[in-house]
Parts: sequence; structure tokens; C-alpha cells
Amino acid sequence: MYSERIAGLKSSAIREILKVTSKPGIISFAGGLPAPELFPMEEFSEASRNVLSKYKSSVLQYSITEGLLPLREKIASVIDPDTWKIGTRNIIITHGSQQGLDLVSKLYIDKGTPVLTETPSYLGALQAFRLFQANILAIPSDEDGIRTEDLLKAIRPGRPALIYLMPNFQNPSGTSLSIKRRLELIEIVQGHDDIFVIEDDPYGDLRFSGERPPSLFHLGFMSGRSRNFIYLSSFSKTIAPGLRVAYVVADEEIAGKIAMVKQGTDLQTNTFGQYVVNEYLENGGFEDHIHILRNTYEKRRDCMLAAMGRHFPTSLRWNRPEGGMFLWVELPEEKDAGEVLVRCLERDVAFVPGREFFPDGSGGNTIRLNFSNASPDNIEEGIRRMGEVLRDMGIEGP
Amino acid sequence: MYSERIAGLKSSAIREILKVTSKPGIISFAGGLPAPELFPMEEFSEASRNVLSKYKSSVLQYSITEGLLPLREKIASVIDPDTWKIGTRNIIITHGSQQGLDLVSKLYIDKGTPVLTETPSYLGALQAFRLFQANILAIPSDEDGIRTEDLLKAIRPGRPALIYLMPNFQNPSGTSLSIKRRLELIEIVQGHDDIFVIEDDPYGDLRFSGERPPSLFHLGFMSGRSRNFIYLSSFSKTIAPGLRVAYVVADEEIAGKIAMVKQGTDLQTNTFGQYVVNEYLENGGFEDHIHILRNTYEKRRDCMLAAMGRHFPTSLRWNRPEGGMFLWVELPEEKDAGEVLVRCLERDVAFVPGREFFPDGSGGNTIRLNFSNASPDNIEEGIRRMGEVLRDMGIEGP
Repeated sequence: MYSERIAGLKSSAIREILKVTSKPGIISFAGGLPAPELFPMEEFSEASRNVLSKYKSSVLQYSITEGLLPLREKIASVIDPDTWKIGTRNIIITHGSQQGLDLVSKLYIDKGTPVLTETPSYLGALQAFRLFQANILAIPSDEDGIRTEDLLKAIRPGRPALIYLMPNFQNPSGTSLSIKRRLELIEIVQGHDDIFVIEDDPYGDLRFSGERPPSLFHLGFMSGRSRNFIYLSSFSKTIAPGLRVAYVVADEEIAGKIAMVKQGTDLQTNTFGQYVVNEYLENGGFEDHIHILRNTYEKRRDCMLAAMGRHFPTSLRWNRPEGGMFLWVELPEEKDAGEVLVRCLERDVAFVPGREFFPDGSGGNTIRLNFSNASPDNIEEGIRRMGEVLRDMGIEGP
Repeated sequence: MYSERIAGLKSSAIREILKVTSKPGIISFAGGLPAPELFPMEEFSEASRNVLSKYKSSVLQYSITEGLLPLREKIASVIDPDTWKIGTRNIIITHGSQQGLDLVSKLYIDKGTPVLTETPSYLGALQAFRLFQANILAIPSDEDGIRTEDLLKAIRPGRPALIYLMPNFQNPSGTSLSIKRRLELIEIVQGHDDIFVIEDDPYGDLRFSGERPPSLFHLGFMSGRSRNFIYLSSFSKTIAPGLRVAYVVADEEIAGKIAMVKQGTDLQTNTFGQYVVNEYLENGGFEDHIHILRNTYEKRRDCMLAAMGRHFPTSLRWNRPEGGMFLWVELPEEKDAGEVLVRCLERDVAFVPGREFFPDGSGGNTIRLNFSNASPDNIEEGIRRMGEVLRDMGIEGP
């Protein structure tokens, strides 16, 4: 009775875990939530009052599908202060980046279209692609991001394909794509008019240290291959997710097609949210706010790393992301993170087993830990309990 | 380079007309906009302040895909004050009803799935269905709505199909489905577990006179056929469209599937908008507000009908909808509404030619007139100019 695409759809185990974590008293490293105590509440409140008095009923009326023009101007001027030649016609405001993924899927994916993803990869993206019956191919990844060598092997000349990746502080693993690999990706798409790179970058602003590397879209634009690259970003992690204001940046013709598709999908992103974000950006303070986020999340990452050093068995491996919201932990290969979760939940600690993020069903011994949404005290206590559980399971040093 | 579905996609002529109508000084009967001067600005402003002080950062955080629980409770209690047994698990909050159409399409439509629609039918729905490569079949309609006799003939036993209609004050024609036809529709789906009626009802609350007939979903529920009916409605026409807060009501299992699909589509509807709508409904005054809308729109309809009586050639035919936002005009059969539009635009009057609303490309002599978004003075003046254009074109009395 349902469409064919529904047969492959299952409720995410993560959603089930997140339901448990709303229980009071639980220490959760499970969600991908930004820290609500850092939301710019005063500024939001002021911006709301301002737009109501300045623009009156316009903030509640229908508006254009492409998105509020002054907001698109601001986004253009931030992502292209001088060289890119990105204008408002390259930008479509979306209802969260998840909608960006939906619209791009509608635009490019037929049943069986190959989508080449990192391993592990963002679950929401996999869900979006599966709703269009994409053929998801998991490309091996390492600490420098997707392995371009393996990517190259998976591309069939003459067959359209999407490449999906998060270049900065990837969800779930926290890894970033190295500059060398970025340049190799630009090489790979040369001569392929039917290969599209979907660059999903919600966390790029949350860099604790080091230089921000150029985006693939930027590099593509510079080398005359802008049509191969679509860039997605969002205000969900830098202002607040509940507003659902995000954006797609693409070649002008592609952006026009995305707007046409959005028209049939939801007419437009909510007007009020767009006005408020625009007003907030106009009033200044956004950069200062991002500095606060970076500093706070960096401290929480350090706190989690220190706690892991103290409490986790030495046979575990984990990484040290330079930004974002997630850490990645590997148990000894034969161990099952699902079992660790069951025992942790008994001790009121939650996390997400990594397996769900592997398009090929591997990764049973991996764990995603979110460090942005717990206080340092809770991080210390939660990691301590996790360490006890791991030792109870007989996991020790090497 | 794009997916197959994009080949059939074209930019709507309506969008092009609406771009022209944003020109200052133009009298527009073209859009489907509610009257912004009636938006409950004070109440919205107060509700915004209240939710910020009551729920703090929760109003900006991620929230559940199904939608804010107290808002779903209120919707359930309004649409089912006693008998329906509709609970929160039957309701999913959507980002506008257009998203409801997108989600339902994802859930049911495979390439070639028949979708049986009224003629004319809502263009946004046709766009949503086309994005999933539905086989749209235009079923003849008359002043009582879709012709059930023709509908019955178009149904192939054993072949899944959707029936799409707006039962109350349909966009574009303003007509409503008679109670007799509603009951016939309930009969038609008996024994068909694979026929789904999508009942799109954004205008039902805007009734100027007469009793509100029971919804198809209600009738279906009462006769044990709830699984055949999906009901869509929205706060876009009763509070404000820029908030993008709407809802789907369906059998519990179907609602669950819709939530799964929504998860991969946009994660959730914007949190702030849901809190504000919930607060506004809680504070009372919503019913009074709807009375104001009804009274104002009724006066505008009457004003338009009176002006048409004075200025339009007697060879034209038009209807008198009992509610909603649109009137429907038929020129003599050989006349082309597109030509009327070109001449009207020269005189700074806009409307939408009906042809776009006909899935089969007929309806070249029809016109949709919106009466909710123009002042009585502008209605009189705009209709007067239209009358002059029609006479200039040689259209006179019979």
C-alpha cells in the first residue's frame, strides 16, 4: 500500500535512544544538540521585537521561495567577501540543512543513482538519499576524510553520481577532509559533468584551532568547476536549530532548479525565522557569539578527552577533532558497542553506537560521543561510568 | 544531468505573474494571500514574549519530528471534541500544508501511480505530485465538486491510487464538495485498501454562511475506513502563512510512517513557530479572530460580486462561493484568459488565468479571482478596469 521507497525505510535506532535520553537525570552524549544555555536568547528576543516593529505584517506573510533577499545578501557577503563572485542568485534558504539534502536528492537522484559517501556518514543524509532509492556506496575513510583513491575507483565514467561528504568535523566521526584530499577531489571531477559533490558543512564555523581550509565549492568555483559542487550550511549550530534556517549555495542555474523543486516541496522557509536571523546578523555580535561557542565546546572536548584518558581502558582508541561537536571511539574489534549502550543506559548514560552511520552495516565496535551538550561535571561523571561499564565487560588495556 | 522527475518540471506561470504584482500600484487579484492587515500582530507579539519567558531556550532547540505535543493535543481536541477518538498520535505537524502534500507523495507515489484530481485543481498539489512522477488523471468536476460517477469509472480495481481534493472552497474555483458526494466517496473506497483520499482543507474555517459539512476523514473514521483518508489543514489562512505551521491527521500507523518520512525530509517543523501558535491558541481569541476573517472576507466577496454585476459583460459566468478566498469566472468558450491578463496588466490589474489549474491543459477561458487580499475600493476599481478590458476585446452580453 505504500510506495516502493518506504519498504527500505526503518525507524532509526538513534531516535529510540534519544527518546530514552529525555528521561530526567540521564547523562547524554547521544544527541547532536548544541548547548541551549549558549543560545543568544536576549539577542533573539530583541531581534524578534525589532522585526515586528520594522517590517510589521510582512514577517508573517508568504514570501518568495528563494528566501529573504537581505538574508541572502548577508550570506553571500560572508561566504564570498571578495573573490568568489557569489551573489544572491546562488543562494537558496532552506528549512534546515536536512531540507537541503532532500531538495538536492529530488534534483539529482533517480532510483539506483549511485551516491558515494564517507564511512561512517551522517545518518540524516543516508535517510534522505534512501527516500529517493539511491544506491549508496560506502567509500572507505580515514583520519583525513574520504579516501580519494577508493573514490576514484568507484566512479564509473558516463554514469551520473553524487559524492556526499562533510568536510569539517564530520558527523559522526569528527574528522575533517585534508587539504590534499580536497585538491584531489577537484581533480577527480574534472571532465565529469555528471558527478556532483554535495558538501555539507554545518560545523565549519566551530573550529577550535588551526586555519579553516577552503571549501570544495570555493576550490571548484576557482577552477571553473562550480557546477560540480553544491554547498550546504546552516544557522542551526551557530544560532539555534529550532529556527530551521539554513542555505544551499550552488551555481546559478542549479540554484534556480533547487528553488523550483522547493516550490513544490514547502513553498518557502518560514518567513519570521528568516527575518529574525537577518536582523540578528545585522545587529552585529554574531562573530562574538561564535567565539563563545568555540571556546565552550573546546573546553568540553578537552574535558571529555581528559576524562577518557583517566577512565577508559587503554585498549580503546579515540580521536581529537579540531572542532565541531563529536568524538569518535573505537572498541577492540570483537566488542559490540550496542552491548555497551545497554549496560550504560542501566547506569543512566547514553551515547550512539556507530554502526548506524555505516552504510555497509559495519562499525559494530564504534561509538559516537557528543561533547557540546553536557556540562563538564556531567562529562566527567558520564565518562567515569562508561569506563566502569567497559571494565565490567572485560575490556582492559592491551 | 538532473533526475528524471526534473524533465517534467516547469516554472509556474503563476510565479511569473506574482513577480509582476509586487510592483507598487498594481491591483492584484492574482495571489492566494490572506489579508495581512488582519494578522493578529499584537497577539503574536505577546505570544512570542510569553513563550520566551516561559519555555526559554526550548523554543529554539531541536524538538521531536511529530511536532510539539501540547499543540497536537489542541488540534486533536478541536477537530475531535468528542466522537472521533483522534489523539496526538494521529497528528503530525508539518511545515505548511505544502509539506503535507510532499510527505504524502513520498509515502504513496511511485513513478506512474495514478493520482485522481478535481478539474481544476490546486497547482501546488499538482507540482508536489509531479515531483514524484505521478500519473495525474483529471476527473471532471462541477459546482458540487469532483464528479463521483467519473471518479468511480477511473478507478482500476487492484491498482493503488490517490484521490486528491479540497472539499471546502477549493483553490482555484471556490466550489465545495456536496454532502451527497462526500457520502458517495465513502462508498467508493469501501473494499479498496489501496485507494487513499487526500483531503486538503486549508479554507474550511473560512465559511461565511451555512453549516460546515463533515470532513471525509471524519466520515471515513465513523464508517471504519479511517485508513483510506488523510486530512491536511493549516494555520496559514487562519493565523498567518509565514509561520509555516500546518498539520496532517491520519490513522495512527500512517501518521507514524509520515513522521518517519518527515525525519529524512527536514527533521522537524520550526520549534519557535509551533510554540507561538500553541501559546496563541492557549490564550483564547482564536475563535474571535476567525469571525473577523470570515466577516471581512465575506464583505470583500460581496463587494467583488457586486462590482462584477455592474462592470462585467453579461456573457460571463461566475460563482458565489460560501467561503474561502477565491471566485471563479468563465469567459465565453472561445475567449482566452491569457489575452485578458496581458491587457489587464497594461492597466495595472492582475489575476491568474485558470488554465494552469487544469491537469489536462483545458480551461483556457477561465479566471481565478482572489478577493481576500484587496480593499473594497481596489476591488471596485480593479473589476471596473477588467470590465473595460473585456469590452475592448469585444466581449459583450449574450
